[in-house]
Amino acid sequence: MKHSLPDAVLISEVGPRDGLQSVKTIMATGDKLKWIDALYAAGLREIEVASFVPAALLPQMADAAAVVKHALTLPGLTVMALVPNVRGAQAALQAGVHKLTIPVSASEAHSLANVRKTREQMVAEVRSIVALRNEVASAVRIEAGMSTAFGCTIQGEVREDDVVWLAEQVIAAGVDESGLSDTTGMANPAQVRRLFNRVRAAIGERTGAAHMHNTRGLGLANCLAAYDVGVRTFDASLGGLGGCPYAPGASGNVVTEDLAFMFEAMGVRTGIDLEKLIAARAPLMAGLPGEPIYGMTPEAGLPKGYVQGAAHV
Amino acid sequence: MKHSLPDAVLISEVGPRDGLQSVKTIMATGDKLKWIDALYAAGLREIEVASFVPAALLPQMADAAAVVKHALTLPGLTVMALVPNVRGAQAALQAGVHKLTIPVSASEAHSLANVRKTREQMVAEVRSIVALRNEVASAVRIEAGMSTAFGCTIQGEVREDDVVWLAEQVIAAGVDESGLSDTTGMANPAQVRRLFNRVRAAIGERTGAAHMHNTRGLGLANCLAAYDVGVRTFDASLGGLGGCPYAPGASGNVVTEDLAFMFEAMGVRTGIDLEKLIAARAPLMAGLPGEPIYGMTPEAGLPKGYVQGAAHV
Repeated sequence: MKHSLPDAVLISEVGPRDGLQSVKTIMATGDKLKWIDALYAAGLREIEVASFVPAALLPQMADAAAVVKHALTLPGLTVMALVPNVRGAQAALQAGVHKLTIPVSASEAHSLANVRKTREQMVAEVRSIVALRNEVASAVRIEAGMSTAFGCTIQGEVREDDVVWLAEQVIAAGVDESGLSDTTGMANPAQVRRLFNRVRAAIGERTGAAHMHNTRGLGLANCLAAYDVGVRTFDASLGGLGGCPYAPGASGNVVTEDLAFMFEAMGVRTGIDLEKLIAARAPLMAGLPGEPIYGMTPEAGLPKGYVQGAAHV
Repeated sequence: MKHSLPDAVLISEVGPRDGLQSVKTIMATGDKLKWIDALYAAGLREIEVASFVPAALLPQMADAAAVVKHALTLPGLTVMALVPNVRGAQAALQAGVHKLTIPVSASEAHSLANVRKTREQMVAEVRSIVALRNEVASAVRIEAGMSTAFGCTIQGEVREDDVVWLAEQVIAAGVDESGLSDTTGMANPAQVRRLFNRVRAAIGERTGAAHMHNTRGLGLANCLAAYDVGVRTFDASLGGLGGCPYAPGASGNVVTEDLAFMFEAMGVRTGIDLEKLIAARAPLMAGLPGEPIYGMTPEAGLPKGYVQGAAHV
């Protein structure tokens, strides 16, 4: 295939939220800001910077408002925050975020473990958050991030009909988009293609990001599969930091560095400078001393003769 | 897509050759045989068990004939060996292998480093090996494994025209198939699709295996890309053992366990029992104490509720 204009994707960095809330060490606010600055300098233009949850539950996120305040000073950056309920949404909207992401679980068992609500109760919560947004900050976008869409470590298989149903429910409740998350690292490429196609058939262009994990090494293959069926937004985490503390045995977000390298090498534009992205690992490591981080491309280095943006398409 | 008969692939295990010749420790012959038995018990039906090269050069392979002799006792197993020249082919054919694989390099620089021959000299060597095979063991199949097909750590970019040219040359020289190897871990999925399509257009069904490396984390995505364009044989190495000692900085064969999990989870049959495959790591580790081995699926375990062969297709 030859395209005169190469495709582009948006890589949405979730490390400062998803990554940091999965590790026990609390990164100091100043270190978070330096890390976010480095991510921004590398070209990332959507960053999930915090979650608005009680500090007693997640002390790693106690400085959410301060982190948002700083992120808002970076021109052109979409500042995202996770909110599990109306109270969190109030705080996030007050802090001035551009976009909210609400976790909803396709698995009833995971929903109860993660947000202590049934799926229907969570849809009602989504509806309340949308009503609040409409009232106080109508320009803010809302995404539902559907956890356990490809399987659940608690209940096992998750029916595809449940995923499609829940996507329809959250769109009916007023969110702008619904993404699909492989919270548990159980997805495979055939399933990714099938399920994104089914969800797109149900909710069309409101189909959101692919949030894949690399638990069994299939993270990039699953992102490729999602790309093949039209997904253009991908969540990833620098150094692969993060997972889900309420999905036992699940670990490993897709590594931003490897994902960005894959797309750039394919001639798909990410807007990311790979060398600066790899450099953004330094402030992450400085802020979380001793925490293991991952990434094959940073370890191997960029290929000999590799010139970013020069890929044949 | 619903198929009444699911697709199948052949995973060709290269660990006992490619893996072992890349590590300094010499695995004892008895340990090699136990490991090969475990691979066979897991369902692998093509194993590259040795290379026939001077023992002074690769002492790890000094017992090649003994290893072949044992492997030939395993019913239904295709016993492969690598041979870089006529002398090696003579020894391998005498040992009774079913299939020879000959390394040819798309990169002139890598060809000189790896086999100390230009590409044209290597094609002449291939022709001599084919003549020998035709004379003494006409049932034996010969594959050319084209190294550095996707890039070279010595010369950088490898022209796609060179890859197509060399595939045509080795087929004209009489080999049964030509595979493409990402020796250096530089391939990306768009390139994999493009290049396998071009080679198939040139040599048709004589297009052979995809031999991918996971150097930058793209190994499985590249295998998926090759599968998408019709490749049905994939080289992989248990525990990701191996690489190429003459391609500096290159490391990491695709992990057999992760590759087999990906295909099985997709509903693509491999003939491999995943639990027995993971169990085959024990004799590998016992025979190479202290050597690091890799694999995300073995670390994470199979997903909850996963039943092999039950995937929806």
